[in-house]
Amino acid sequence: MPLRVNAERLLARLEEMARVGATPAGGVSRVTLTDEDRAGRDLLRAWLEAAGLAVRVDDFGNMVGRRPGREDAPPVQLGSHLDSVPRGGRFDGALGVLAALEVVETLNDAGLTTRLPLEVINFTDEEGARFEPAMLGSGAAIGHFSRDYAYGRTDAGGLRFADELRRIGYLGSEADRPRPGSAYLELHIEQGPALEAAGLPVGVVEGIVGISWLEVTVVGQSDHAGPTPMGLRHDALVAAARVVDRIDRLVRAVDERAVGTVGRIRIEPDVINIIPGRAIFSVDLRHPDLATLDALVTHLEAIVGSETVGSGLQATVDRFWTSEPTAFAPEVVAAVQAAADELGAPSLRLWSGAGHDAKYMAEVCPAGMIFVRSRGGLSHCEQEYTTPEEVVAGANVLLGAALRLAGLAGG
Amino acid sequence: MPLRVNAERLLARLEEMARVGATPAGGVSRVTLTDEDRAGRDLLRAWLEAAGLAVRVDDFGNMVGRRPGREDAPPVQLGSHLDSVPRGGRFDGALGVLAALEVVETLNDAGLTTRLPLEVINFTDEEGARFEPAMLGSGAAIGHFSRDYAYGRTDAGGLRFADELRRIGYLGSEADRPRPGSAYLELHIEQGPALEAAGLPVGVVEGIVGISWLEVTVVGQSDHAGPTPMGLRHDALVAAARVVDRIDRLVRAVDERAVGTVGRIRIEPDVINIIPGRAIFSVDLRHPDLATLDALVTHLEAIVGSETVGSGLQATVDRFWTSEPTAFAPEVVAAVQAAADELGAPSLRLWSGAGHDAKYMAEVCPAGMIFVRSRGGLSHCEQEYTTPEEVVAGANVLLGAALRLAGLAGG
Repeated sequence: MPLRVNAERLLARLEEMARVGATPAGGVSRVTLTDEDRAGRDLLRAWLEAAGLAVRVDDFGNMVGRRPGREDAPPVQLGSHLDSVPRGGRFDGALGVLAALEVVETLNDAGLTTRLPLEVINFTDEEGARFEPAMLGSGAAIGHFSRDYAYGRTDAGGLRFADELRRIGYLGSEADRPRPGSAYLELHIEQGPALEAAGLPVGVVEGIVGISWLEVTVVGQSDHAGPTPMGLRHDALVAAARVVDRIDRLVRAVDERAVGTVGRIRIEPDVINIIPGRAIFSVDLRHPDLATLDALVTHLEAIVGSETVGSGLQATVDRFWTSEPTAFAPEVVAAVQAAADELGAPSLRLWSGAGHDAKYMAEVCPAGMIFVRSRGGLSHCEQEYTTPEEVVAGANVLLGAALRLAGLAGG
Repeated sequence: MPLRVNAERLLARLEEMARVGATPAGGVSRVTLTDEDRAGRDLLRAWLEAAGLAVRVDDFGNMVGRRPGREDAPPVQLGSHLDSVPRGGRFDGALGVLAALEVVETLNDAGLTTRLPLEVINFTDEEGARFEPAMLGSGAAIGHFSRDYAYGRTDAGGLRFADELRRIGYLGSEADRPRPGSAYLELHIEQGPALEAAGLPVGVVEGIVGISWLEVTVVGQSDHAGPTPMGLRHDALVAAARVVDRIDRLVRAVDERAVGTVGRIRIEPDVINIIPGRAIFSVDLRHPDLATLDALVTHLEAIVGSETVGSGLQATVDRFWTSEPTAFAPEVVAAVQAAADELGAPSLRLWSGAGHDAKYMAEVCPAGMIFVRSRGGLSHCEQEYTTPEEVVAGANVLLGAALRLAGLAGG
């Protein structure tokens, strides 16, 4: 019989961690580098040390607990994050960290040692809710962000990342950063409805989609809503509305992996009886394939052009940020799939529509992810929920995949 | 040869009035019941008295200068307003008041007396820019607003209408309100592009359109823009955008007198990577015919329903304000048309798309309006402009129409 995690211990620890920063409505506020974050870190450190791990903290506050392997080779790293958004949920991030710890505990209980070392990682500031951008800790650890950049990030109150890191006592040293491992694995809630819609408990994640963020500005002419006949108008909002509609239709026509969202819109002067002279809106486009993502942007530009040309309107499209798609390493995806299959857990192959620490880790080593269901697709809210059975199933897939990658059984 | 106004005097007085509250960019800020408004009123009062008129001020600050006729019958009233929006133009309102004065001056110069008395009126707070609603002075004078209501209106700083009226020294008595006249005439800039588009200098106004203001709320479901497939979304903005597009198409399909505007829109949570869960927007619909206006509202409700039904969205349409159409008196419209024709001024019959004091005056006596061109259709801004020739033509039409209605030449 294959190894299984201790479900009671894992669920009890999730419950205990959820009390750190608990909100009355059942969520958590454990925003990065706050006193609640420190309390969560202290609790994790105690558990890691009690499990016999050597704990170190790097110069961005990333925490690493190490369990030696039979060989002194690059480790298999299992991680996620303990920080949350304000009034967030109890699963986003914490599940991956505590399941990683549970993998180690399970091996301890069984008296087993893997060929490669195992590391449990808690990354700093994955959410970016207080210090932008998101995934600051993992990005800095792999050198995507410079130390000066990370240290200089400020919150809404003007406090600096470095100062708050020192204040909570988690400013470590560069030598203690996680080094490129043999593989990186992250268990996370899906934060979307795909698993629920498919009726499947486990997601085998093939990669993280590419994302382009754009800002579209349509400039027309403000005029009185009364005396200006329809034929003489240059209404920026009507054109913007047609673009919003066509983005939706475009994305649906591409394939089922494409998504596009206009999440933000502002018009000027925004007065009930004045024709809008200006409309500014964001577009968030995502696709696993970079060429398709680029094609979506090109189509968007054409749509904006066609809705404004010859109408007395002017428009600009600013593609101000792109995160290229990350395809996970085939051997890691295969290990996750094999672990799910062995467990008899029906699984769905899917791409992550959101960023995770695994994105940066994939830049330096073979990486992969496991998703479990989010009820109603909800996350970043207090209603975030995953059933105990799904939590345990996800942890067992993490365990099985980790053992495959780290080499057990005589190796 | 028919009587003509003194163009130099009229233009000089427009210029002098424009110095009261003048802005550096060539506009005026003569907001109601400010020191600038008082200065403008003082200047007008001096001119009215110098022209031999008996000046009275009512309990809302409306100023009336009376020139007796050969009969002591209800007067022909010529009026508009001296107040402006902040950083407004020099023609909106002031033109109608000073042209009315010029009609009297022209009769004085010619030594003529009309059969009916003439009154020159400056209404308080037509703009509603400081004390809402607009047309407060004329509305209160005819009893549309109670005195308590008008007096209790407050500005953004909490100051009361009645207190500010007293402060500037223009709190008069109820007995001095303008009484229902034989006719009311108002010369005003068009504030729209129709005359310019038609290449015609003078507008013979047939009425003031009906206006309905609505608020539409579309409620969907906020979700992450990444992990939520298009097929599982309930995007409030996409539905709202389709409604905005269809309002525009609907209104254009009705007839060329219909206009519809979405001037204000807000979405929630208005974050770049979150699918909008709520969209709230205004709709301003206008038409000269009440049945058509009502039909537009019904069509709008159907559009909102069809864009949300069966899609997991919910929507409400709140028609929170309607101003019914005002058709001007045929005899007054005919007098304006005859005066324009006599002058050889090519004219356009049109409806006013915006409210004016003439709307309230039409409730108590036969009323009409004359429009002159607004360059570029612009108003309520410092760029507002009407050429001297157009100003003079408008004043001569006012003179001709007033003489027809008040009875000259032996009467």
